[in-house]
Amino acid sequence: MKILITGGAGFLGQRLARKLLEQGRLALGESREPITQIDLLDVVQTDAINDTRVRSVKGDVADPAVLESLIGTDTAAVFHLAAIVSGQAEADFDLGMRINLDASRALLETCRLRGHRPRVVFTSSVAVYGGALPDLVRDDTALNPQSSYGTQKAIAELLLADYTRRGFVDGRALRLPTISVRPGRPNAAASSFASGIIREPLNGEPAVCPVGADTRLWLLSPRRAVQALIAGCELDARALADRRPVNLPGVSVTVAEMAQALREIAGDAVADRISWKADPKVEAIVGSWPGGWDTARAARLGLEGDNGFADIIRAYIGDDLRGTV
Amino acid sequence: MKILITGGAGFLGQRLARKLLEQGRLALGESREPITQIDLLDVVQTDAINDTRVRSVKGDVADPAVLESLIGTDTAAVFHLAAIVSGQAEADFDLGMRINLDASRALLETCRLRGHRPRVVFTSSVAVYGGALPDLVRDDTALNPQSSYGTQKAIAELLLADYTRRGFVDGRALRLPTISVRPGRPNAAASSFASGIIREPLNGEPAVCPVGADTRLWLLSPRRAVQALIAGCELDARALADRRPVNLPGVSVTVAEMAQALREIAGDAVADRISWKADPKVEAIVGSWPGGWDTARAARLGLEGDNGFADIIRAYIGDDLRGTV
Repeated sequence: MKILITGGAGFLGQRLARKLLEQGRLALGESREPITQIDLLDVVQTDAINDTRVRSVKGDVADPAVLESLIGTDTAAVFHLAAIVSGQAEADFDLGMRINLDASRALLETCRLRGHRPRVVFTSSVAVYGGALPDLVRDDTALNPQSSYGTQKAIAELLLADYTRRGFVDGRALRLPTISVRPGRPNAAASSFASGIIREPLNGEPAVCPVGADTRLWLLSPRRAVQALIAGCELDARALADRRPVNLPGVSVTVAEMAQALREIAGDAVADRISWKADPKVEAIVGSWPGGWDTARAARLGLEGDNGFADIIRAYIGDDLRGTV
Repeated sequence: MKILITGGAGFLGQRLARKLLEQGRLALGESREPITQIDLLDVVQTDAINDTRVRSVKGDVADPAVLESLIGTDTAAVFHLAAIVSGQAEADFDLGMRINLDASRALLETCRLRGHRPRVVFTSSVAVYGGALPDLVRDDTALNPQSSYGTQKAIAELLLADYTRRGFVDGRALRLPTISVRPGRPNAAASSFASGIIREPLNGEPAVCPVGADTRLWLLSPRRAVQALIAGCELDARALADRRPVNLPGVSVTVAEMAQALREIAGDAVADRISWKADPKVEAIVGSWPGGWDTARAARLGLEGDNGFADIIRAYIGDDLRGTV
C-alpha cells in the first residue's frame, strides 16, 4: 500500500515515516498489507530517511495538481500534517488560509475525485478551543477559536467530517495537545516555548519563557503523538461513530511545574537557564487554549498519552539526546 | 448610508428591505443616518419594491468582481442571506460549497479589502447542530452538523468570527430557527414542509408532511426573523463579546401540535388537508436538528421570538393573507 504524508519533511512527519517503516504494515480493516511506498510532500526536499520505500517530493500542498500527482486509487492513507503554525498564521493571514484551509480542502477534493475513500488522518489542535472555557474541556464543548490558526483547524475538521459523512474519505481528526519536547530549533508557533524551555537548557543554551509561571499547558510527547497518529489511522470507523474529531490525551501542567520537573531531572544549573519575559502576543494566543480536556473518549478508543511531564522530558532525552544530558 | 442584501430577491430579503425602508434609518453605534440606498443582489432581478432607494442587481454572489462592484467604503451594513438550502446543498455538493462557503468567504474578503469594517449580518441555522444532543441546546454546545448545509453554515460562522476578531468586519451570525410560515411555494429546503403544512391548507390546497407527527421543530415567524436581523445588526459589539453567533429564540413544537393549532384556528376542513407520508431523506436531515435551545443569551441581547405557534399562524394570516382565511 501507498501512504502520503504532507508536511513530510517536518519533525513529526519524519518520525511518523520512520515508525511506519519500522512496523512495515498498517492495519486498515481486514487488510494488513505491507507498506510499499511513503511519499513525503513538503516545501523542501529531504534525504534524511535512507529507505527505498520513501520518496521525498518538493511541492506546494495547496496546489491541486501536486495533490493529484501524489494521491492515486492505490493511496491507502493520507496523513495531513502540513500546516502554518499559530504564530505565523496570526502574522500572515493569507498564508494561513492558503495552507491550513485551502490545502486541506484541495486534499479532500482530490480524494473525492479518486473515489476510493482513503483514510485521511488530519492533525488538529488544542487551538480550536477558546473563550470562556470549563475547567475540563469535553468532547462536546463548543469550538470557539481565538486565533486564525485555530479557526482554520476548526474549519478543516468540519470539512473532514462532512467529506467523511458523504463517503468521500474515511477521515479522522486528531486534536493534538501542544507537542513537547520538540527537537530542533524554535519555530513561529505561539507554543514554541513549551519545547524551548526544556530543550535549550538541556542543550546548554538559555531559554526565555514568554508566559506567566502559572500558565497551564496540555502536552503530549512526540513519541506518543506518532503512536496516536498511527492508532488513529487504524481505528475502526464504527468506533468513531458520528464524531470524527478526537481529543488526544495529554498531560496538564503549569509552566512552573515544567521548570521544576526539569530541575529535578537535570539539576539546578540546567533549570536556571530559563529566564522569564512576558510576550503579550504569545500570552494572548496560548492563554486562550484550555489547560486540559476530558480524555475518556480517547481512552475508550485505546489512544494513550504520557504519564506525567517527567516522562515527557525523559522521552526527549531518550529519543533525541541518545539518553544523555 | 448604503446597505447590501444578498439573496435580496428572496422572501426574507424582500421583507427585510421593506422593513428597513419603512424605518428609514439604521442605528449603528453613534450614527443613525438615513438609509440612502439598498442593493438587492440575487440570481434574478426583481421589481417588487417600488422605491427610489432600492436597486435590484442580478449577479453571482460567489463572484468577487460582483461583490467588489457592490461593496464600497460607504456600505455601512451587509445582510448576507444568499444560500443554497439544505435539501439542495445535500443533493448538489459543489453548488452548496460554492454559494454557502465560497461566496461567504468572498464577501468577507471584499469587506476586508475595503478596510472600513462594515457590519456583516450572516444568517446561520439550527442545522449547525446535530448528532447526540442535549434536550436543550446551549450557546456553548458543540456544533456537529449532519448535513453539508449545516457544515457550510458552521464554517461561515467561524470565518465571520475570525474576520471580526481581526478587525476586518463587525460580524454577527444569527442562527435562525426554521422559518415558518414562509409565503410562496415549497422549496428544496428539508424544512420546507414546516411552512407547507400550514400554508397550503390555508390556501385550499393539500399538503404532505414527510416526517413523523412527534418530530419536534424549532420555529420563528418571518415577522420576528426580520425584526431580529435588524436588531442583530444594530447590537452593540461589546454586548456580543467574543461569541459572534447568537441562537435566536424560537417556539419548540411538534408537527402534531402544529396541525392541532391549525385545526383550532382554521377548522377541521382546513387541517384535514394535511396527509402524512414519511420521506427518509427529509427525516434524516430534520431529525438531526435540535427541537429547541437555551434562549437566555438572546433574551439578554433583547432579541425576541414568537409567543407560541398559534401566534405564528396568525402572523402568517395577518401578513400574507391580508387577515382572512
